[in-house]
Amino acid sequence: MIRVAIIGASGYTGAESMNIILRHSQAKLVYLSALPEECGDVGDVFPQFKGRYDLKIEPLDINKLTDLADVALCCLPHKVSMEFVPKLLAAGLKVVDFSADYRLKDPEIYQKFYSVKHTDTANLKDAVYGLPELFRKQIKGKNLIANPGCFPTGALLAIAPLLKEGLIETDSIIVNSVTGTSGAGRNPSAKFHFPNMNENLFAYGIGTHRHTPEMEQIAGEIAGETVQILFQPHAGPFDRGIFSTVYCRPKVKINSEQLTALFNDSYRSEPFVQVRKDAPAVKDIAGTNYCHIFVTYTKGRIVVFSVIDNLVKGASGQAIQNMNIIFGLEESLGLK
Amino acid sequence: MIRVAIIGASGYTGAESMNIILRHSQAKLVYLSALPEECGDVGDVFPQFKGRYDLKIEPLDINKLTDLADVALCCLPHKVSMEFVPKLLAAGLKVVDFSADYRLKDPEIYQKFYSVKHTDTANLKDAVYGLPELFRKQIKGKNLIANPGCFPTGALLAIAPLLKEGLIETDSIIVNSVTGTSGAGRNPSAKFHFPNMNENLFAYGIGTHRHTPEMEQIAGEIAGETVQILFQPHAGPFDRGIFSTVYCRPKVKINSEQLTALFNDSYRSEPFVQVRKDAPAVKDIAGTNYCHIFVTYTKGRIVVFSVIDNLVKGASGQAIQNMNIIFGLEESLGLK
Amino acid sequence: MIRVAIIGASGYTGAESMNIILRHSQAKLVYLSALPEECGDVGDVFPQFKGRYDLKIEPLDINKLTDLADVALCCLPHKVSMEFVPKLLAAGLKVVDFSADYRLKDPEIYQKFYSVKHTDTANLKDAVYGLPELFRKQIKGKNLIANPGCFPTGALLAIAPLLKEGLIETDSIIVNSVTGTSGAGRNPSAKFHFPNMNENLFAYGIGTHRHTPEMEQIAGEIAGETVQILFQPHAGPFDRGIFSTVYCRPKVKINSEQLTALFNDSYRSEPFVQVRKDAPAVKDIAGTNYCHIFVTYTKGRIVVFSVIDNLVKGASGQAIQNMNIIFGLEESLGLK
Amino acid sequence: MIRVAIIGASGYTGAESMNIILRHSQAKLVYLSALPEECGDVGDVFPQFKGRYDLKIEPLDINKLTDLADVALCCLPHKVSMEFVPKLLAAGLKVVDFSADYRLKDPEIYQKFYSVKHTDTANLKDAVYGLPELFRKQIKGKNLIANPGCFPTGALLAIAPLLKEGLIETDSIIVNSVTGTSGAGRNPSAKFHFPNMNENLFAYGIGTHRHTPEMEQIAGEIAGETVQILFQPHAGPFDRGIFSTVYCRPKVKINSEQLTALFNDSYRSEPFVQVRKDAPAVKDIAGTNYCHIFVTYTKGRIVVFSVIDNLVKGASGQAIQNMNIIFGLEESLGLK
Repeated sequence: MIRVAIIGASGYTGAESMNIILRHSQAKLVYLSALPEECGDVGDVFPQFKGRYDLKIEPLDINKLTDLADVALCCLPHKVSMEFVPKLLAAGLKVVDFSADYRLKDPEIYQKFYSVKHTDTANLKDAVYGLPELFRKQIKGKNLIANPGCFPTGALLAIAPLLKEGLIETDSIIVNSVTGTSGAGRNPSAKFHFPNMNENLFAYGIGTHRHTPEMEQIAGEIAGETVQILFQPHAGPFDRGIFSTVYCRPKVKINSEQLTALFNDSYRSEPFVQVRKDAPAVKDIAGTNYCHIFVTYTKGRIVVFSVIDNLVKGASGQAIQNMNIIFGLEESLGLK
Repeated sequence: MIRVAIIGASGYTGAESMNIILRHSQAKLVYLSALPEECGDVGDVFPQFKGRYDLKIEPLDINKLTDLADVALCCLPHKVSMEFVPKLLAAGLKVVDFSADYRLKDPEIYQKFYSVKHTDTANLKDAVYGLPELFRKQIKGKNLIANPGCFPTGALLAIAPLLKEGLIETDSIIVNSVTGTSGAGRNPSAKFHFPNMNENLFAYGIGTHRHTPEMEQIAGEIAGETVQILFQPHAGPFDRGIFSTVYCRPKVKINSEQLTALFNDSYRSEPFVQVRKDAPAVKDIAGTNYCHIFVTYTKGRIVVFSVIDNLVKGASGQAIQNMNIIFGLEESLGLK
Repeated sequence: MIRVAIIGASGYTGAESMNIILRHSQAKLVYLSALPEECGDVGDVFPQFKGRYDLKIEPLDINKLTDLADVALCCLPHKVSMEFVPKLLAAGLKVVDFSADYRLKDPEIYQKFYSVKHTDTANLKDAVYGLPELFRKQIKGKNLIANPGCFPTGALLAIAPLLKEGLIETDSIIVNSVTGTSGAGRNPSAKFHFPNMNENLFAYGIGTHRHTPEMEQIAGEIAGETVQILFQPHAGPFDRGIFSTVYCRPKVKINSEQLTALFNDSYRSEPFVQVRKDAPAVKDIAGTNYCHIFVTYTKGRIVVFSVIDNLVKGASGQAIQNMNIIFGLEESLGLK
Repeated sequence: MIRVAIIGASGYTGAESMNIILRHSQAKLVYLSALPEECGDVGDVFPQFKGRYDLKIEPLDINKLTDLADVALCCLPHKVSMEFVPKLLAAGLKVVDFSADYRLKDPEIYQKFYSVKHTDTANLKDAVYGLPELFRKQIKGKNLIANPGCFPTGALLAIAPLLKEGLIETDSIIVNSVTGTSGAGRNPSAKFHFPNMNENLFAYGIGTHRHTPEMEQIAGEIAGETVQILFQPHAGPFDRGIFSTVYCRPKVKINSEQLTALFNDSYRSEPFVQVRKDAPAVKDIAGTNYCHIFVTYTKGRIVVFSVIDNLVKGASGQAIQNMNIIFGLEESLGLK
């Protein structure tokens, strides 16, 4: 039985991780930490766990963790995470880190997009980008996994087969995404105040969204060359899910049937990627760890539609998928 | 042309008032004030008015108002309002006040429910409760109107005909209401954070909601005796509207047909109250100044269903209806 | 491993049952049937199960079931169910029936509310009402369970402790409920067309809702006397959940603390009922088999707030809870 | 006072037109027609108009119209419209037609996309495309206006300034749109059944949407050359509004400031187009006839964000704007 600690348990990804572990036959939750003002009985902090978990969320005490836990799901925000991850590793835990701190390999790009100097470049070097469909072998047995961002997960699964085969121009990829509001986190704000967000849809992060360099880095690794992505996120009036519509310019003559065949081949043995014969919908995957993809050719473009649940495949589900891989468990435990 | 000032213009009721005045053929907006940090061009504070209003929201300067405006819609919060209303009246303006400060005739009940001593009992005495369907004559020509609360508006219109005729027991009225979220105002909070409020519905103010004494006061005036109301509000995942289900115990044998006839008689000449032959829906009145009512007898009870838009008939629309009455204009101007 | 068949698998309760069984360590799905026009690969009928179930939904062939399955979750509509349940029982299966056909013990009341003569009174006599918190002992080992209606589940759990102790008057209980839209089923209709239902809330079934006699029958069994309930349902703009606000008139002097103590005692050992210290919210239980309850005394009434997920505790979850009890399994398997 | 008839009044665009005319000081509604099964008192067909309109919706009788009305808002569906428009014109009425029947100048393209032969090519030749911001002069005094489609309205206003100046490549425009659900019309369907559409977002009309040739035709007229547009619509869980994100490849070096200046110049005198300094949101324009636009340069592309209300600027509001122009009235009457 894998013993799991959640560091930064008071947010939505903490709660989602707790929900998944309840259904995991070979992992159990042993420790929960959060900022002092967010601590308390789990059932008080999250009424949905009343009677389901008999644990307290407490201020982080890393000393207790060495004997208590095998793995930490580190749900801390960017910048805070790289302060604590070295300590968690030093305490002998495996770490799946939800923040961006170990995703961008180049500390200068990190500094540019996150406005802070990277303080743990030692561990950054060893961290593996935890997108199992692309990097499963490297994840196995590793100590530190950088759990991917939600948008990059959906976008990269949509374009990986095309990039691997060199089928598209690498300077004109457009990723147009609409996310549910849980992506904004648990802190109230004017934009996500219900009477403002309800019946609304808006674009944000125009030309500046931090997931852009992450997408470009991994896409570049797949393609073996520099990739430029115009990524435009939007927020829509629903809780969960990301719908990405990806527009690519083909380098070669290709049709929809050939594209579908390529995607079927690429993802045949992947438990969590389903290639569809029709356009997917956010609700087809909400609450699950699945990514549904549909690819077609129209008007001179390859258009790929991809949907994931931002809190599951885009965060907590993927983290537990990574945890399962690290420990050599069946990859879908807790995620059925 | 009536010249209108809105004091406290930066909230939802301010915006709704602005929207209505745009369509009012005999009123125009001349002045908008708010707290300094909420000031600016109307089109910047409220993008929905960009190109529609060429006004600034500015910090309140009562001295300017005497020559500028005929009437103030005072959208300040409870407690703040009674500081400024005397000054607005002294400046020679008619005032329609949206707060609770001039609704409760008994300063002690006010103090009990609002936890502050009433500081303007002089004007409190003269204020008229602005529910036109009940107090139209008293409103005409008045200087200060206490615009009713949203829940009391829907509930009182539902029970007034029954109380007037003495048909129900006055100690066992239950008002079960569900309101849209705009009732919570424009300040973000955890409860109304979109990912929390969406797909949710909850009760609040159990046994303590401040609209209870307001309902009981006016219901008592109508009945000519003390009335006790168990009022239980809930919040639901929509922007606008209040659905009230009111349960009353009849004193006499009565059937649905007789009840419908009574309500039809009561509201025949009321432009904004429609007696329905079937249960109304929130969406039938959203965005309008109308109240739809359905009354029936079942299982030993009279059940009355009432719907209003909390921002229109429950606030800004009713305020402008009151303004129209004060100035002797056609009551429905701006409200069609 | 319990082998489960779902009869009438193409609706929302069929899908929810499939979802739960995926997470059940001692049950597996072996057979799915539906009307011919709704048959096909599970992943085509319900895209959310693509890659998760490798089964077909096929037209019902009862002959195949004897050797194939141990239990049938019968998700057929009222009236259709009593045609097939006798055949399922004859084939040697245990049956948990989701319809109303085996809930009302009096065939005349059934006929009055469902406008059809009961055709299987033999099995009706033996059926047990499957509300485990009240009838766990009778459920154990039984062949036919009448799975409770969604509204009665929430309402009965709210009033059972009060009725058992004889604390309330049995002729003046009011149950005011708001349900999510999945309760309306999978067939499109004008009322539940998104642009009509969104931003809406309405009452329905005024004085006539079919769950009224069901509530009254079970409440009467608990109380040991006739109980009359005024049940008023409403539909609100969310997918899942029922919020019930129950108003009762106490027979004795009682306060909130005493009420809380009573409810705590009543439900202390119940895994799926949580007594809250504050008002519950629909989102606290959405997607779970839990019922959260808060009880208080105010204005001469006992008010009980109860929330359940209509598709889980109000249908599929409770059915699987019943299945677990029938077969002597741990009651919460699949439902954590 | 312009006398208005609405033909095909029982749908959402009919209701929206009725709502606008209520607020129009120089137009009044005199006649409403629909299919026989959708006829009745306005207040019964549309409860939101109870007490606001005292009219009947009746089966169409064109003979009555000659003396009764000056203009018909023809809200009939595609294909049906071209049967009735010639008769309405022959009866001496001006016609604003909401269908696609008079938008596509080439009957062969019409036949290809609408699968039916065009039967009124005579009037088709004379019809003017009713996008006032582009074709105001041609609209004035005309007898037949083809009211634009909802998606083309938002998309064309977003790209017109770029095409006029020849700033973008005309073979690589991508229009990615998300529409509210009222665009699907009033007939219930599985996709728009509330429990399916709520919390959902999906793509449709991939490579085939009928608004594509309409956009390409008008864009081509503006550009003076063939324009190819990859248009991809999506449906999201809200009632009203279209958010379009338009990606264009510039022909010349240009920056965001130059683009903003160009758009400001283009729309300076347009009452209903507002050029924003930040990204617009659907809720900024819901319920209004306004189009908000933001343009920027990023990652080698010009990206234009455009929002309209599909029922107002995308249908009924624009129709009444056209009606105002035809009759020489102030263009914003009823639309403030």
